[in-house]
Amino acid sequence: MYNPIFFLLTDFGLQDPYVGQMKAILWSQVPEAKILDLSHGVRPHNVLQAAFFLASSWPYLPSESIGLAVIDPGVGTSRSILLLRRGEKTVLAPDNGLLSLLLNSWPDCRVWSINTSTPEKEISSTFHGRDVFAPLASGLAQGVGPDQLGTEIEPAKSRVSFWTPPSLQADRVQAAVVHVDHFGNCVLNLEAELWGGRLPADKPIDLLHPRLQAVYPVSTYAQIPDAQVGILAGSQGYLELACNQRSCARDMGLDIGDQCILKF
Amino acid sequence: MYNPIFFLLTDFGLQDPYVGQMKAILWSQVPEAKILDLSHGVRPHNVLQAAFFLASSWPYLPSESIGLAVIDPGVGTSRSILLLRRGEKTVLAPDNGLLSLLLNSWPDCRVWSINTSTPEKEISSTFHGRDVFAPLASGLAQGVGPDQLGTEIEPAKSRVSFWTPPSLQADRVQAAVVHVDHFGNCVLNLEAELWGGRLPADKPIDLLHPRLQAVYPVSTYAQIPDAQVGILAGSQGYLELACNQRSCARDMGLDIGDQCILKF
Amino acid sequence: MYNPIFFLLTDFGLQDPYVGQMKAILWSQVPEAKILDLSHGVRPHNVLQAAFFLASSWPYLPSESIGLAVIDPGVGTSRSILLLRRGEKTVLAPDNGLLSLLLNSWPDCRVWSINTSTPEKEISSTFHGRDVFAPLASGLAQGVGPDQLGTEIEPAKSRVSFWTPPSLQADRVQAAVVHVDHFGNCVLNLEAELWGGRLPADKPIDLLHPRLQAVYPVSTYAQIPDAQVGILAGSQGYLELACNQRSCARDMGLDIGDQCILKF
Repeated sequence: MYNPIFFLLTDFGLQDPYVGQMKAILWSQVPEAKILDLSHGVRPHNVLQAAFFLASSWPYLPSESIGLAVIDPGVGTSRSILLLRRGEKTVLAPDNGLLSLLLNSWPDCRVWSINTSTPEKEISSTFHGRDVFAPLASGLAQGVGPDQLGTEIEPAKSRVSFWTPPSLQADRVQAAVVHVDHFGNCVLNLEAELWGGRLPADKPIDLLHPRLQAVYPVSTYAQIPDAQVGILAGSQGYLELACNQRSCARDMGLDIGDQCILKF
Repeated sequence: MYNPIFFLLTDFGLQDPYVGQMKAILWSQVPEAKILDLSHGVRPHNVLQAAFFLASSWPYLPSESIGLAVIDPGVGTSRSILLLRRGEKTVLAPDNGLLSLLLNSWPDCRVWSINTSTPEKEISSTFHGRDVFAPLASGLAQGVGPDQLGTEIEPAKSRVSFWTPPSLQADRVQAAVVHVDHFGNCVLNLEAELWGGRLPADKPIDLLHPRLQAVYPVSTYAQIPDAQVGILAGSQGYLELACNQRSCARDMGLDIGDQCILKF
Repeated sequence: MYNPIFFLLTDFGLQDPYVGQMKAILWSQVPEAKILDLSHGVRPHNVLQAAFFLASSWPYLPSESIGLAVIDPGVGTSRSILLLRRGEKTVLAPDNGLLSLLLNSWPDCRVWSINTSTPEKEISSTFHGRDVFAPLASGLAQGVGPDQLGTEIEPAKSRVSFWTPPSLQADRVQAAVVHVDHFGNCVLNLEAELWGGRLPADKPIDLLHPRLQAVYPVSTYAQIPDAQVGILAGSQGYLELACNQRSCARDMGLDIGDQCILKF
């Protein structure tokens, strides 16, 4: 691989030297690589949020990039590590559901279960991002194939459907907030594509929620009336509840996991 | 361009994968580029703060670097995108005042208004950083010229003087806080150069503000007496109110936009 | 040096353009370099925490890397700048104790005191990271030797033993929290190696602290019983107090500097 790019997705935050130590290993072994920080701001242990970040970012990742997705509350236990490959892109992740949205979206992915029975003495039992994932990824960048690292498995085996799909009925949809972004926009588990045909774009939609009755279908944040809430197809492929230059999450008291009902 | 460097200035924060997706596009199209994060911590929608970061950082940016400055509350509306070039350095930004301090400091900049009438279907209306700015910047790095992307305009047209200049009088100056940094230092809209000749460096200056009467002119943070406030020429080219190993903003209750009067 | 890697360790945070300006200088002078962010989240002015980050990360850093460790409350004063070299790795830091843990761990380091009597006019007195450290590091990457920059000194001279060692007695240890990480794990000043032989791994240890009586010796976070506190050898080489998917620091009310007693 001529121009390797690693991408990192973790819940490590950026205060500690953890991400830096992972990069140190990667650059020690593959000095010519580029390293792309997809996010280190996944909420601690929040595998669902990480799954969303990974699936929504996948189409934009450079061809031949190799990902290390380390949201890993079971680090050091017997949980497996998976390798997913689709086209020229590869990602390593613990087998805890982190890959599930990717597998739902692209059933043509191939998946391997990694054999990690390496000698234990050099491996911490609390930081596999640095001690296991980084060496594995470095090997891949240097030409090691997935079959040398583990055994190919049926992708279905590794699918954990922990993201409850929305409940779609004739006149209403029950949805959930799957992410609140830096601006306070609330991403719903409603794929923009699917919803597109049904969205009554000419009038407000009733939102059954303690603090609000109507949301305005718009196509840009700037179109949302002052002190109102809009609904729009967001950049990550899902519908979002949003305000204009204000945090919708704060104004509405919404957070990840909250349910709401949209009524036509 | 042999060794392209992109620099990024946004209000996206680092929790979401937004910055990562912008980098993914840039590296997909220009794999050999370097990417410099100037800041992603501009307060959401705070064009003034971003204008300050851009102007104060400009002299240090590598020659031939190409900037993407995306603080863009009007994303998806009819607001234009501007390209500014000075010497070998280039920056793209929405036409919302973000370039104004740069234009005030260096009137010899050249400015183009970008023609963005590309087919809409591939472009989200909420994330032009990824879908418009990154492709434009990639093109520039690959040799596309500004004239191929838009029309040169008079710089004056794009100047928005939203930064109120300080009011300088014989015995007093009315200033405003334009930035509070990570350490709690309060940057004033008083250029250090301009002020230099007038600063009575041998005795405290009266500060008309509810919580304080005197500030001490110093040249280093360590010289500021305990439990006192100092005033000094900061590293960004402006005067700062500061404390020694404490947050001046917190101690004084100061924030961006606050006014204060310095009396000699 | 064919493939220079700079690593950065600061307390600058990532809101301001300070880190970006340091990188701008480094890439202006050494365009082919890689830049590794070890951490910019050291608490403001907390030299002890930075010393811990540096010492614990040192073994992982790429060979031939050049560090800029800028936690520098005395910036602009007469405090010296030191250059430490061990093997092929180098780091620059103010002489304020930041290198002390590194020197304790590897007494074979060599240390130089840098001569910084450069003309003052181009140097701010508040931001030596950009104006002094970055040019020095660039010079090193371009082949300048330590002897050209300063005078070799006895490492002992620069050792500041500000990290109080734990008090080890027959049946108890008095320890201190030296770091609280992003997950709320509390790192103690107890080297895992030293402690290893004594840790009674088969039963809980009494912790003399207002909120708790027993901590469970474990080897992974997932083994810690719900609503309990575990003690384990962490990835940074020290013992940690931790909870399972909860913040131990928050639950226990612990912070950096707090003391606790472990009783067998």
